[in-house]
This record gives sequence, C-alpha cells and structure tokens, in this order.
Amino acid sequence: MGGFTVVATFVGSGDDVLMGERADRVHRAARLGGIAPFHVMDLLAKAQALEGIGRPVIHLEIGEPDFATPEPIVRAGQIALAQGRTRYTPAAGLPALREAISQFYLQRYGVRVPAARIVVTPGASGALLLALATLTGSQQKVLLTDPGYPCNRHLIEFLDGVPVNVPVEATTQFQLSAALCSEHWDDATVAALVSTPSNPTGTVISDDEMRALIDVARQRNGRLIVDEIYHGLVYDAPPQTALAFSDDVFVVNSFSKYFGMTGWRLGWVVAPEAYVDDVEKLAQNVFLAPSTVAQHAALAAFLPETLDILERRRHALAQRRDFLVPALRELGFAVPITPSGAFYVYASCPDGVVDSYRYALNALEQCAVAIAPGIDFGRHRAQTHVRFAYTTDIARLTEALERLRAWHHRTA
Amino acid sequence: MGGFTVVATFVGSGDDVLMGERADRVHRAARLGGIAPFHVMDLLAKAQALEGIGRPVIHLEIGEPDFATPEPIVRAGQIALAQGRTRYTPAAGLPALREAISQFYLQRYGVRVPAARIVVTPGASGALLLALATLTGSQQKVLLTDPGYPCNRHLIEFLDGVPVNVPVEATTQFQLSAALCSEHWDDATVAALVSTPSNPTGTVISDDEMRALIDVARQRNGRLIVDEIYHGLVYDAPPQTALAFSDDVFVVNSFSKYFGMTGWRLGWVVAPEAYVDDVEKLAQNVFLAPSTVAQHAALAAFLPETLDILERRRHALAQRRDFLVPALRELGFAVPITPSGAFYVYASCPDGVVDSYRYALNALEQCAVAIAPGIDFGRHRAQTHVRFAYTTDIARLTEALERLRAWHHRTA
Repeated sequence: MGGFTVVATFVGSGDDVLMGERADRVHRAARLGGIAPFHVMDLLAKAQALEGIGRPVIHLEIGEPDFATPEPIVRAGQIALAQGRTRYTPAAGLPALREAISQFYLQRYGVRVPAARIVVTPGASGALLLALATLTGSQQKVLLTDPGYPCNRHLIEFLDGVPVNVPVEATTQFQLSAALCSEHWDDATVAALVSTPSNPTGTVISDDEMRALIDVARQRNGRLIVDEIYHGLVYDAPPQTALAFSDDVFVVNSFSKYFGMTGWRLGWVVAPEAYVDDVEKLAQNVFLAPSTVAQHAALAAFLPETLDILERRRHALAQRRDFLVPALRELGFAVPITPSGAFYVYASCPDGVVDSYRYALNALEQCAVAIAPGIDFGRHRAQTHVRFAYTTDIARLTEALERLRAWHHRTA
Repeated sequence: MGGFTVVATFVGSGDDVLMGERADRVHRAARLGGIAPFHVMDLLAKAQALEGIGRPVIHLEIGEPDFATPEPIVRAGQIALAQGRTRYTPAAGLPALREAISQFYLQRYGVRVPAARIVVTPGASGALLLALATLTGSQQKVLLTDPGYPCNRHLIEFLDGVPVNVPVEATTQFQLSAALCSEHWDDATVAALVSTPSNPTGTVISDDEMRALIDVARQRNGRLIVDEIYHGLVYDAPPQTALAFSDDVFVVNSFSKYFGMTGWRLGWVVAPEAYVDDVEKLAQNVFLAPSTVAQHAALAAFLPETLDILERRRHALAQRRDFLVPALRELGFAVPITPSGAFYVYASCPDGVVDSYRYALNALEQCAVAIAPGIDFGRHRAQTHVRFAYTTDIARLTEALERLRAWHHRTA
C-alpha cells in the first residue's frame, strides 16, 4: 500500500504520465484513477512499526474480529485435506454447500432459496464483483451510501461503472431510503447497493424500508443488491433477509464475519433466476472455482455445535457494543444512532476535529490507539468522523478509552 | 453452465431484452455478450450423466492433472490449520511466501526478482485479472493468440477491453511472433498476452522470440504479459522465464499446474516496479487477500522433497506425451508441432470433420471418450481441431485411442 504522501500525489488518471528517471511513458488503465488506497492500511503499517519498537498498540482499525475460526469448521477443513480434497470444484461451488446454504435460509429465515440460485465465491468480494459485473456496464451508475464500505465504490470503478455516492444522515439510519433512491436514480442508473448491517455505521435497514427499496429498483427496471455480510452479527431485533421480500434481488453474503472464516476467503451470491447463468459464466472465467478446502470446511459452519459457538460470540460483541457506545459519547464523540449490528461504531469526533486522518494518526502516535479515519468511507462529513471496530475485548476497549481520554485532556 | 442450446440462443448483448412470462425487462451488462460459456463444460455434464448410467468415460477434456497435491504441501496446510492460521493475510500475500517465490526464481532460473514485485493472488485467474485490469481500459486492445485459452479473451471482455485474436499457425509454433505482434498492434493496443507453454497447443516461445516480443511491446509503449502457468511442465529444453530478459514485463504464474494445487486457488503475478502499487491496490479491492491456508501450504511447494515429487510427475507426463502424439498421428490426426509442455495435444481432426463440437459430442456418445472441441479456444480452424489433455495414465490413454480407432472404423 502506498503511504499518505503517495496518495496525495497519485497520478494514475488513465493518461500517460512521465515517471521516473528513464522517463518511460507508463500507461495505466483509467480505472486506477478512481480507486484510492485505504488510508487505514497506512495507519496499520505505522501501528506495526510502533509495535516493532515496543509500543503496545490497541487495534480498533481493522474489520476482523479477534475470534479464531470455530473449531468444528477448522476440523472439517483438516479432514478434507486428509481425504485429499484438493482438486477443482464446479465454478458455482460444491453442490452440497449450495444445498447447505439453501437449508440455512430455510432454517434461520424461513425462506425458500433454491440451491440453484446460490453461487459460492472467493469471499464476499468475489460475490459483489459478480453481482456488479452482471449488472453494470461502462458508464452505468450504481447508487451507494456515503459513508459506505470503500471497496463497493472501487469495484464499480474497476468495472468502468460510475458509483453515485449518496450522502446519508442519521435521519435515514445512514442508509439509502426509498426516497433517496428515487431522488438519485436517473436513466443511466442500473442498480442500488445497500449494506445491512452497514459498514461503517452498523445500522440496519428495516423490513418495511427494504420492501420499499426493492419496489423503487423494480419500478426503474433496475436491481437492488443487498450486502448481508454482517447478518447474524445483530444485537437488537434481527432483520429479515431481503430474499424474503423478493426473488428479484441480488443478495451477497460471506463466511468471513458471522462464521469467523475471514482468511478462508469464501462467500456467496444469491442471484435472481434470470441472472444465474450469467453469474455462473462470469464466476467460471474470473475465478474458475472457489477454494476447495474452504468449501469443505464451510459445510461445518451450519452445524448446531458451530452455531452455538457463534451465538456466544454474538453475545460477547453485544456486550462490547453496549460498553463502547456510551463510553464514546461520554468522551465527546457523537453517535446519533446506536449501531444494531456488525462490530463498528462510526462516531463524529469531538468539536474541533477537521481532519480525520490527522486525528487517527495522532491517536496512534500519541496514545497507541489505532482507528480508521472517516475519509476511507467517503466524503460526506468524512473529515469529522472515525470508525471504531470493537474487535477486541472490553478490557482492551477500556484501556483504549482511557488513553484517548488522557490525550484529549492533555491537548484540550 | 448453460448447455449447448442455451449457448446458441444466448441473448445478452447488453441491450435490454424481453424474457420470460412476466416480460420483465432484464438488463445485463454489455460484457456478458462477449463472454461465451465453455462448451467443454457442457460435454463434462453430459459425460457425468453417462457415468451416472454406468458408462465408463475416459476424461481427456479437463485441464486438471490426475495427481493429488503433493503430501508435504497438504501437511503444511494441515499444520497451518492446527496452528489457527485462519485470519486475513496482507493483500499482496504472506511476506514469507513472496520471499519464497523470489528465491525460487533465483534457484530455478538464476534470475533476481525482488519479493516486492510479487503479488500473490487467488489462482492465476486472479493474477491475469490484475495484470489486465492494470493495463486495459475501456475499448483498449490486447493481442492474443487464436487458438488460445478462452478465459484470457473473456477477462479482457470482462474489463470492457477488446481482445484481438490473432490467428496463429504452425509456422510460428502457434504463438505470437514479434512480426505478428507488430502487424496487429495499433494505436488502441496497450498489451499483448502470450502463454508459454501454451494452452491448448503445448508449444513454447523460444528465448530469442521472447526477447523480440518484449522489444515490440516496449517500442509501442505497451507491455507484454507472459502467462507461465505451465512452466515446469516442459519435456524438452526448458524455457527461461521472461523475467530474465526484462524487468518491464508482467509474468503470471500459478501453484495449480506444476505444483499440483488446483483446488487451493493460488497464483501470483510479477509486475514491473512502476505498476506494483497499482496491482496491490486492485488486489486489495477485488480480492482483499488470497486464501491463508493455501499460502501456508504453498510455503512447502519449494521444499526439495516436494520438488522431487514434482519431477517424477513431470517424467510421467513426458512419457504420456511421447505415447499419445504418435498414436494420434497414426489415427489420422495431424499434430504439426510436437507440444513441448503443459499436458495438451491440439490436434487437427481426420479429414471430413467440420464441426469440432459435434465431433467431440459424438466421441463422447459413441465411445465414451471426452475431449475438448476447438471452438472453446477461438475461431481460427476451430471447427477442425480438438484438444486432448493427457491427464490420465497410459493404460487409459491406450484404451481411449482404441475406442476412437474402432469408432472411426465403424463410421468410415
């Protein structure tokens, strides 16, 4: 990852540019100009450098929980390797896994989703890429929230589409509403992408609003893509899957977050029936197939003993949220909507903060607390917000807050 | 995969089309129109159906060797799981693996390739996607061979680029030559992609021709992408890596073929220094990171005990080639260039064959031998060619040839 200085002078706008002593003309594809590196990676590198000289950094910047993959899943992976399951699977995934995911929808949500509509992918990243690539051609628009998960915008740029970053406020739970969707949808718009629970805000779209969003997309002859990768990690009333309301939405999900399988790189997309062949064709060409060992391991993700472990973790995360949100408010951060899910708090900084990267950098250097700057998630109020990931235990969260409090007092 | 009938009536040309009883307008991205499904997948499905009713099909259609992943690699994967290595790695891959790949270039080729230029990817598919996405913008051209590996064309279509399929003949070893490259390169061309050894022809680009190709691309201010995923699987004099001749080429490689790790989905791209940050930025957004367990397993790919296993396999493949090529010629197939590498023979069918899909379908239905039709690899002489993958042992190859011989006699 390029550092902050590199970002500021980034030149890849698709034009040929002169670079380096040899003055070779370095041609880059235009897409590179629209894709910024994550500033949080720069902070992570700086945090690791601090740790290298012995400073104990508390990491609240990265979206990876501190829980290892549940033991039944790991064991299933080990057994698969022992059995020599190391060859390609079908591009859409193991039939047994697609069936297991279908059963999961029935058991957890009471919704029938045919296995034939489920395509297993390398992570939710792969699932999002396939859904977007199926819908979004050159110069076609996709509506997104600002703030939102930066890769979503970048995947659209990757596909030569146009991300339309709709500023969202607490009044709509920091989510796209049907009204916002209608307002920003124009003739070049082909889809809207929502995430529930959202990264970075942790907010959830209500079932009624989801129905209304689906209706707007349908009326405009477009499609709604619903990112449900934080489903399961919800601490208030759990939302229904969007698949309960329509067979005509794309739903993206993942084994990474709720199921604790980040490094295995496994996710899935549920496509409307009319698009399944398209998605599968793209999967075959872009990925060939998802990881075989990950798929065999994931077959154990829905076992009762695994789900028990996951529910205990969910309770632990709920306790962290219930601790962190009031504590941040007491420190002078504004959190207008208490997040219902994921493991993030998107907080407006105390008065006077006007540069979220600088604030995050100072928090790291002054008190060894790593957080993600708002500018990684968009532009709207991005300079005054930061994201806290509660991916560490309450003792460490307490220590992080103490350090921030002392630092605020020193600099007040 | 859609079947053959679906292929013939495929409608996704980017325009809205009326489909189904509800007469909903189904919008598809334009890229889908340029990407054909693989006919071989249709044949594979038919082969599996035949096996389902008890017919013993000999599979010579799929590009996956019959060797399992070498035991030291599997063991390393199991140990990694036992140690709980299930979290994200950096987007460019484990530093230790990038270093091990760098060392491999030094030991095998005597070439210094800094680890910083190596980005680990989900399979060579991922590596090709990143290299092409870095170079190829909307409507920009990339030169390829016809025949060639179909995903290469399709990845360019996926990126809204334009694949220029250059017909190649035995006179240039079925490869792009510097002369062909010059002839077809125009102002919209940004890169040429060559594969050595090639799929489907198994031919290798000589070191002199590789130098000349690099020069042509450089003179045109473009870049050469060299797919070396079948490197190591070479049965005559092994070619040098293109990285020996220039620091300014993209080289794609994989743990799938030579290292026997197909289902693990792990490859890498070596980028010119000026592009490394671009490639890494795209990797972060499109893939987040490659599979963690696969990366830990791959650390064992370069151990002497693993390389011993791989060399024994290479000798077995060489014996199969030396058996299959003359036997096919005796059967009436023309193989003008004896393939030097990979595990493919691209053969011109006996006189009278004018529909390679029909020929492959008949071979499957009449004698339960599955092969890949030429039309999967391009258009040039595609209706008269088929590809045999020698991914099964000599006993089975002998049986397959006997069946074909008997069938030819019956229908002569």
